[in-house]
Amino acid sequence: MSTATPTAATAVFITPEALLAHWQGHRRLTRRVIEAFPDDQLFAFSLGGMRTFGELAMEMLSMAAPMVRGVATGEWSTSWDREARPKEEILRRWDEATGEIDSLWAGIAPEKFQEQMTAFGQYPGVAHDLVLYVIDNEIHHRGQGYVYLRALGIEPPPFYER
Amino acid sequence: MSTATPTAATAVFITPEALLAHWQGHRRLTRRVIEAFPDDQLFAFSLGGMRTFGELAMEMLSMAAPMVRGVATGEWSTSWDREARPKEEILRRWDEATGEIDSLWAGIAPEKFQEQMTAFGQYPGVAHDLVLYVIDNEIHHRGQGYVYLRALGIEPPPFYER
Repeated sequence: MSTATPTAATAVFITPEALLAHWQGHRRLTRRVIEAFPDDQLFAFSLGGMRTFGELAMEMLSMAAPMVRGVATGEWSTSWDREARPKEEILRRWDEATGEIDSLWAGIAPEKFQEQMTAFGQYPGVAHDLVLYVIDNEIHHRGQGYVYLRALGIEPPPFYER
Repeated sequence: MSTATPTAATAVFITPEALLAHWQGHRRLTRRVIEAFPDDQLFAFSLGGMRTFGELAMEMLSMAAPMVRGVATGEWSTSWDREARPKEEILRRWDEATGEIDSLWAGIAPEKFQEQMTAFGQYPGVAHDLVLYVIDNEIHHRGQGYVYLRALGIEPPPFYER
C-alpha cells in the first residue's frame, strides 16, 4: 500500500475487486434462498399482495448482469420478462449471470465507477451508486423472501453465510 | 482525479465519503419505515415467528454507531437491550446515531477501512466488510419490515427514495 496520505478523490473505502467478492457472496446466498423455495411455491406464494419470490428473482436477473454490462460497455439492454418458470431454469440463469458478471467486471477500468451515467436510458447516477442499487435491491427483496420462507414453515439459510 | 492508472491496491470502487452518503441515504429510508409503523404494532406485529420490527430496529441501533466507533477508536462496546419502547424514543436514538456516525466517520483514516480487525471481540473481518455487513443487515431487515407493513395494510415508503 502507498504511504502517501490519500486525498478525498483517491481514498479507498473498497476496491472494485473486493466489492465484486462481496457481491458474489451475496449472490451465493440469494441462490440458496431461491433453492429453498418449493418449486410449486416460487411463483405462487406471497404475502401482503406483494410479488412472488420468483418474480423478484427474475427482477434481480434483469438488473445484475445487464447493469454490469452497461457500465462496462455503454450498451444498456435488459428483459422485463417476469413469467413463471421452473426453479431449475432460474438457477441456471443465475449461474450464467455469475460468470457474466465476473468476466465483464474484470474489463471495467476503475475510474469508470466514478463516472456519471444513465442506466438503461432512464436511471441517472454515478456508476458505483448504480451498482450498489442493484446489490441493495437484491438484499432488500431477499429479506422479503426470508419472510415468505418462514411463513411457509421453511428455515432460510443463515444471513451471515456467504 | 489522478491520471495515473490505478493498481489493484489503490483502485477505488467508492470513497469513504461517498459510502457514508450512500449509507445515510439508507438510514433516512429506514427511519421512514420505523415512522410508518403504528406505535402499538412496532413491538407487537410479526410474521412467521420472526422478530418484531421494533426489535430489528433496536438491533440496527446496536450495530451502526457502535461499529463505526469500533473502527474509528478500537473501542468495541454495544447494548444488547431489545426491550419494547415508544416509537419516539427509537426515532430519537436513530437521530443521535446519525450524528455520531457522521462525526466518527470524519475521523477514520481511509487506510483503516482495509485493516483486518475483530469487531466486538468476536467478528473478524476487514473493516470495509464489517461496515458493509451492518448496512446489508439494515437493508435485509428493513425489507422484512416492508412485508410487515404491507401485511398491516400500510403502504411502505418507496425503496428508491433516500
